[in-house]
Amino acid sequence: MQAIVNIVLKDGVLDPQGRAISHSLNDLGFSEVSDVRVGKQILLEIDENDPARLRQRVARMCETLLANTVIENYSIVVADEK
Amino acid sequence: MQAIVNIVLKDGVLDPQGRAISHSLNDLGFSEVSDVRVGKQILLEIDENDPARLRQRVARMCETLLANTVIENYSIVVADEK
Repeated sequence: MQAIVNIVLKDGVLDPQGRAISHSLNDLGFSEVSDVRVGKQILLEIDENDPARLRQRVARMCETLLANTVIENYSIVVADEK
Repeated sequence: MQAIVNIVLKDGVLDPQGRAISHSLNDLGFSEVSDVRVGKQILLEIDENDPARLRQRVARMCETLLANTVIENYSIVVADEK
């Protein structure tokens, strides 16, 4: 099954990459853009058929390696392959 | 309104960051992980109330700045704020 992990900086944390993109978009004429945040999306292919157990394992991967939970929030999407 | 842009490397393109994560997860005991791809998620806050026009503008931003369409695919999610 496939799991998708979305990792984004917590609200109070400065996001210089997002700010740079925001400025660049404004400069390019996209003046309607007011704020940009940049996160990571990690797509995992996993040999596990139980969605509940898959979610639990992926959460452990996030806590162990994928996310820095001091400054980042993560969310897990389990894509059902049927 | 908020728009989310997901950018991921095209299928044939080597993803060394994904491979490194995959190896690390295997080493940490997550042997069920068979493949990892790493993409970017860009969250845009935009002063535009028409979802169709929003999507069109964001697509133009992707083509102009956000995505490298030679090696990356992008998808746009418009989050309805009601």
